[in-house]
Amino acid sequence: MRISELSERSGVTIPTLKYYLREGLLHPGELQGATRATYDDSHLERVRLVRTLVDVGRLSIERVREVVRAIDAPPAGRHELLGAAHEALRPHPASGTPAPEALERLAALDLPECVHSPASLQLAEALTAAAAAGWSVEPETLARWLEAMRAVAETDVVAALGEVSPGDALRYAIVGNVLTDPVLLALRRVAQESVSAERFGTGPTRSTG
Amino acid sequence: MRISELSERSGVTIPTLKYYLREGLLHPGELQGATRATYDDSHLERVRLVRTLVDVGRLSIERVREVVRAIDAPPAGRHELLGAAHEALRPHPASGTPAPEALERLAALDLPECVHSPASLQLAEALTAAAAAGWSVEPETLARWLEAMRAVAETDVVAALGEVSPGDALRYAIVGNVLTDPVLLALRRVAQESVSAERFGTGPTRSTG
Repeated sequence: MRISELSERSGVTIPTLKYYLREGLLHPGELQGATRATYDDSHLERVRLVRTLVDVGRLSIERVREVVRAIDAPPAGRHELLGAAHEALRPHPASGTPAPEALERLAALDLPECVHSPASLQLAEALTAAAAAGWSVEPETLARWLEAMRAVAETDVVAALGEVSPGDALRYAIVGNVLTDPVLLALRRVAQESVSAERFGTGPTRSTG
Repeated sequence: MRISELSERSGVTIPTLKYYLREGLLHPGELQGATRATYDDSHLERVRLVRTLVDVGRLSIERVREVVRAIDAPPAGRHELLGAAHEALRPHPASGTPAPEALERLAALDLPECVHSPASLQLAEALTAAAAAGWSVEPETLARWLEAMRAVAETDVVAALGEVSPGDALRYAIVGNVLTDPVLLALRRVAQESVSAERFGTGPTRSTG
């Protein structure tokens, strides 16, 4: 297809598509003469991926480039794929290195398979940021929350790592986290309301805004 | 204290403090003559709150102003406080109204206390955004995740709504969610690694970045 059709089918304007091509987020089309190129379904899929990462994941263009590169050269092992997905999605921490207390709390969770992994580093950074703002997550709370997230992760791992090719599995792991993180956080709020209603026995919570 | 001491103790520069005063994020100090004002611990606490919302929660200044106003005029009921906290934190959705499928999925969760609440609207919006990007969260998955988030919410509700004054409870509910949402998402990744290691039986996941 021509770039105009790629634009129409993806809902992304031609100038934006050209920007993606320049920035290396989108692989070049097949040249048909000096000024014409054609594109295929792989381009359409890639444009949709970029939009998801930008619109829903609110990733920077630089971050999206890293994700795209990782998908184009994925690690071979199923388990290593997760590390690559987590590394691609890890927020840039506001502060520097994790606090010693956060690392201790992590060690107490006893997860040998996560030592030095991007995920455990992200956890240490989140705990450090919370503690710096005066919010300490108690060890028992952290262990209980981890248990809860295990139920979520069961679905995630089956979904992502059941994919056939490493590139697809990596894309699935990244997109799955990006798209369902907001679902999980919304479910947390819904669960807070539900628990609160049970405890305080009142009617529906209405918006005050 | 003078503004210079407020700056020193909060780690926020004087120009930024003046900006907060102009924007109504920080209540005025007590005037001591025409050009001098003094500040107290309520100002220090407010500055710290604003920093947390901006740095960790990545809220816009406009959003922070809404949060501050809600805290200064909180609803009286414990349960309504949660609605106010959730409304203050609800992301501005990229798309418009939730899709009918998302509302159906919500209805299937059978949570009468959450009908039309900011939390349930946020959930419908997150499901709509995921579906628009081609990712459908199955009803069974959603129910299982809600159950998992209930364990998290138990801690949240006890912590926040145990506070004495409505303003403190609201602040606690908002700050608690802002600071521990990243902890939860990091725990999800850690749990993914842990589940993956159990299933694929490999060693630690190393960063590929």
